[in-house]
Amino acid sequence: MKALVSIIMGSTSDLKVMEKAAVFFDDMKIAFEMNALSAHRTPKEVERFAIGAAGRGIKIIVAGAGMAAHLPGVIAALTPLPVIGVPVNATLDGMDSLLAIVQMPPGIPVATVGINGALNAAILATQILATGDENIMKKLIVYKESLKQKIVKANDELRQINYKYKTN
Amino acid sequence: MKALVSIIMGSTSDLKVMEKAAVFFDDMKIAFEMNALSAHRTPKEVERFAIGAAGRGIKIIVAGAGMAAHLPGVIAALTPLPVIGVPVNATLDGMDSLLAIVQMPPGIPVATVGINGALNAAILATQILATGDENIMKKLIVYKESLKQKIVKANDELRQINYKYKTN
Amino acid sequence: MKALVSIIMGSTSDLKVMEKAAVFFDDMKIAFEMNALSAHRTPKEVERFAIGAAGRGIKIIVAGAGMAAHLPGVIAALTPLPVIGVPVNATLDGMDSLLAIVQMPPGIPVATVGINGALNAAILATQILATGDENIMKKLIVYKESLKQKIVKANDELRQINYKYKTN
Amino acid sequence: MKALVSIIMGSTSDLKVMEKAAVFFDDMKIAFEMNALSAHRTPKEVERFAIGAAGRGIKIIVAGAGMAAHLPGVIAALTPLPVIGVPVNATLDGMDSLLAIVQMPPGIPVATVGINGALNAAILATQILATGDENIMKKLIVYKESLKQKIVKANDELRQINYKYKTN
Amino acid sequence: MKALVSIIMGSTSDLKVMEKAAVFFDDMKIAFEMNALSAHRTPKEVERFAIGAAGRGIKIIVAGAGMAAHLPGVIAALTPLPVIGVPVNATLDGMDSLLAIVQMPPGIPVATVGINGALNAAILATQILATGDENIMKKLIVYKESLKQKIVKANDELRQINYKYKTN
Amino acid sequence: MKALVSIIMGSTSDLKVMEKAAVFFDDMKIAFEMNALSAHRTPKEVERFAIGAAGRGIKIIVAGAGMAAHLPGVIAALTPLPVIGVPVNATLDGMDSLLAIVQMPPGIPVATVGINGALNAAILATQILATGDENIMKKLIVYKESLKQKIVKANDELRQINYKYKTN
Amino acid sequence: MKALVSIIMGSTSDLKVMEKAAVFFDDMKIAFEMNALSAHRTPKEVERFAIGAAGRGIKIIVAGAGMAAHLPGVIAALTPLPVIGVPVNATLDGMDSLLAIVQMPPGIPVATVGINGALNAAILATQILATGDENIMKKLIVYKESLKQKIVKANDELRQINYKYKTN
Amino acid sequence: MKALVSIIMGSTSDLKVMEKAAVFFDDMKIAFEMNALSAHRTPKEVERFAIGAAGRGIKIIVAGAGMAAHLPGVIAALTPLPVIGVPVNATLDGMDSLLAIVQMPPGIPVATVGINGALNAAILATQILATGDENIMKKLIVYKESLKQKIVKANDELRQINYKYKTN
Repeated sequence: MKALVSIIMGSTSDLKVMEKAAVFFDDMKIAFEMNALSAHRTPKEVERFAIGAAGRGIKIIVAGAGMAAHLPGVIAALTPLPVIGVPVNATLDGMDSLLAIVQMPPGIPVATVGINGALNAAILATQILATGDENIMKKLIVYKESLKQKIVKANDELRQINYKYKTN
Repeated sequence: MKALVSIIMGSTSDLKVMEKAAVFFDDMKIAFEMNALSAHRTPKEVERFAIGAAGRGIKIIVAGAGMAAHLPGVIAALTPLPVIGVPVNATLDGMDSLLAIVQMPPGIPVATVGINGALNAAILATQILATGDENIMKKLIVYKESLKQKIVKANDELRQINYKYKTN
Repeated sequence: MKALVSIIMGSTSDLKVMEKAAVFFDDMKIAFEMNALSAHRTPKEVERFAIGAAGRGIKIIVAGAGMAAHLPGVIAALTPLPVIGVPVNATLDGMDSLLAIVQMPPGIPVATVGINGALNAAILATQILATGDENIMKKLIVYKESLKQKIVKANDELRQINYKYKTN
Repeated sequence: MKALVSIIMGSTSDLKVMEKAAVFFDDMKIAFEMNALSAHRTPKEVERFAIGAAGRGIKIIVAGAGMAAHLPGVIAALTPLPVIGVPVNATLDGMDSLLAIVQMPPGIPVATVGINGALNAAILATQILATGDENIMKKLIVYKESLKQKIVKANDELRQINYKYKTN
Repeated sequence: MKALVSIIMGSTSDLKVMEKAAVFFDDMKIAFEMNALSAHRTPKEVERFAIGAAGRGIKIIVAGAGMAAHLPGVIAALTPLPVIGVPVNATLDGMDSLLAIVQMPPGIPVATVGINGALNAAILATQILATGDENIMKKLIVYKESLKQKIVKANDELRQINYKYKTN
Repeated sequence: MKALVSIIMGSTSDLKVMEKAAVFFDDMKIAFEMNALSAHRTPKEVERFAIGAAGRGIKIIVAGAGMAAHLPGVIAALTPLPVIGVPVNATLDGMDSLLAIVQMPPGIPVATVGINGALNAAILATQILATGDENIMKKLIVYKESLKQKIVKANDELRQINYKYKTN
Repeated sequence: MKALVSIIMGSTSDLKVMEKAAVFFDDMKIAFEMNALSAHRTPKEVERFAIGAAGRGIKIIVAGAGMAAHLPGVIAALTPLPVIGVPVNATLDGMDSLLAIVQMPPGIPVATVGINGALNAAILATQILATGDENIMKKLIVYKESLKQKIVKANDELRQINYKYKTN
Repeated sequence: MKALVSIIMGSTSDLKVMEKAAVFFDDMKIAFEMNALSAHRTPKEVERFAIGAAGRGIKIIVAGAGMAAHLPGVIAALTPLPVIGVPVNATLDGMDSLLAIVQMPPGIPVATVGINGALNAAILATQILATGDENIMKKLIVYKESLKQKIVKANDELRQINYKYKTN
């Protein structure tokens, strides 16, 4: 089974955030690979990775990084594949990372999700794959329905809470 | 007893913030309902809720949400009732939620209170009801007097603290 | 005709922002009054105004101010009427004013709208009045329909713009 | 020719930003449609649009909005298609819009690009299409090469600037 | 002994911050009074306090408050005495309080110190008193010398820390 | 006539902001001096100035600076006189300057006014002088009355503006 | 004459900021080179440049970039030479660029100067060169003296401004 | 052995941040000195230190400080040596300190690293020394290689984590 998606992170300290993406791909039965490569400490490896990704069959790259987060942008500069950037909150509530990922100059976009939003990055990657794969699309629709059920159930529980002047 | 106010929240994780509104309505003997509905996960239910609220006798909607908090604005787009928005602090000290609620475009206002300000949202709702209901107005005035007494009492306690050069 | 709404601003330099509220009330045929009173330069007048408002038949106060904008909160402290606060952008893109208005302590809410959002403040005031007045409610619904028509028309114009690969 | 991409904006005042996306799709010969629909003023139309998009053959939605920018998130809640969000700078340097688009809750991602980044949104959409279309991929690679040539040429011009102690 | 300085705070929850001012005045043997009065919950008491302060012999007012911190500005509007404002960190790292205190409109200054800077507020009050009182001036100079000694001693301790390549 | 107040600025580009302080002292007939001294470019002169100020009869120093505004704090470190800091907006809307002035460490306060608030700095200086000088106090009270009259007059003008539904 | 310093910028639109560095090196008679290379559009050229710089005799690199400014960090990852980063204000008052340059992860520092601070970057580069070159050190000291003279002269002009109560 | 680098901090509470610099210099066998001197509490000592540093053989100064962090800039004003500034996070996530250090006016640069970035400050100092010392350069290259090995090893560990659909 060849990986369709590649998860990459700037440091293993980002794993606690990025593993939510891995778990989601597992649940969706989407083959993926996962690497720790640093734009700053292993630039050569990042370059080799980025240039080779499309040729290996990767369709989408999910890249997480914190602080002055250059990893997603550096990869996006070296591949025509869509790159999804996950700002990881390491300092300043993640605002430095968000801006360093999302504010890319014209020509090299990074599809940015919210701070620590690795799950959403994985869902977005899956949505992209689903545009060309009906099987994945069906699983996505089931997943979205489960999100709805969770909040419907939450609402039911909320109704059980008793306040004197609360009506039902 | 028909609910006059509807409390709505984007997720049950917002309950620890929003329950202060419920408690206040209970104290004021104002009938209310409470629901968890997500602008993003249950958009159809939100729509049904918002469109039906006025017809069911609801006068004011108090809506709390965090992050990219769309719930209050989405409801305000679908009802002529006043919508009070409560920014819930989930990330970025609640600044994302505050801006996503208060900065509504011309035409669709949301009456925004402070971050995690569910109690103030409930007081504001009560003030709105009181403009047309003398009974509620009287209770409000009693409540405001109790706030005053609390700080008068606090001041008395402060006077008991002894510093050598503190005068009375 | 007795004013139902009172527009108040901290300085006449706020008029260019606040007059949108006046124009809206005119369009809606809602009687209003308009005053410039400063929480800092005429505190006594502000106090007299705030304490007397309800007795004069005012139902809602719309208060705009910039910088360390205390006016809406100071008025809210002195009246049980709902106070709608309009942060006016005088410095710091209006962020100082927004925070000084919206972040009220528990007990004294201000219904805050967006920066320079005087039109939305007037719409919100009208929505509040409409909860107790079917006539105003009808005008509001007509107004909301006109907003919709404006964007429907805008959409039509957008369709006229020709790009070679744009479909219709 | 059926549109593959749909450009949507919250107001025609966003056109000056969003038209860069239209021009890019034209250059790439990618069929697209363009609409102005407001999450707040025409919620029903937004809903109809979002629910119908996939069925009409749309693969990706590019949605731009300013202030409390709910449009991209509201659409993402109603379609399994990938939604690319463009924060439009209307107030606060676009920071309100950026946060209101990117900080989506778990389950409903929006692929966010930089403030006013409509060109990058269009490139990202094209990159997504290119993962399943070799023809588009080739055009993308040509485009990226042209970006490179532009900066190579800029560098040549820079070399012509004479300073006394500048070497070549 | 008549109080020369008045410490005032918006809520007793501010006491843990403001007591540093009380302790400093004690150390400096400067008579002071201390009150909890809320601009929003006890506006009448604040007014009485502010108007009467100069007549009672108070020379300087030190006022601390959090969130939309109106207390220092409201007092400054009612007295010609210098008012020192202490932004208390209750939310948003104290940034809301700082802006709500420091950004006063022309005509009504508040002498603002750093967030939670009650000690500095007391030192500043003492510096103001010292301009007209040689005795206090002498104590101030002794105090400043003690600050210097503390850091000189700290430096000595730092020299004791051994690193292999650290020189002395 | 010996100067009681010293105005100091980090650069003559700050003059357009700081001259409001000079004009106010002129209006109040308070003798002052004015200097441009840079904490960074003329540190020795700043030191000589700060150490000598009290001895020359100066009672208060008003110091304005922009960007990483060290001037007020550096002076405060070298004199027991109260130092009033004016953050000058040179970059970042003046936020860098505000934080670099107000966030002083324990021991060395700077009495900070709002961004570009040179007029308020001069009023504050006058209020400090007035605590020991009845003559100045009287002038201050006249000045505050004039502020009030200005807004009372503004209010009168506001009443002249005609809207159809505006009442008087 | 071999270049000692290399000025690099992400786009020629940064030239209006970065040319201040060129002019300073000219004034100091320090040989330099100047290039426009983009971390995102010409990553290969950036890599070649960064890896070759030390071998060509370059001692320091001055790199300016705006938005999600990766250029200085990407170069710093590929060379052991000190890299001075200049955040260029293209959006968000330059705050995105400042954070994307200064918040580098452990291991790869960038010596960051203020927003648009190309002149300071050149001075810093010269200070670094001066630590090993007495000739440059002498020129630096002359330069710093000229800065002082400029403000001394400014101060003289300030003394000529007449206010009635201004003393000399 | 004479110190080449001087570490200076505004308070010993900064030691927990700054000691990372000391440890790095130890590892690199670079002689250094370490002092606690306060720009505000011991300005004379700071002056003596800054003026004497070059004469004592110091080549680079690493200065850390928090809040309104004036220490690095004040030292930079008094020495032609390069000064590396470390913003220490004491309040506001370190944003006040970062701006107070990096936003220096033209003429007096401070080479700023990230918030709490003492390790990077030490590496930067070492890079500067290495431009004139081949021995240090060699050690630096070994160090950078070790950073790379750490992330290569981290990547290996990442590969061991098993998810069902993760490929290798």
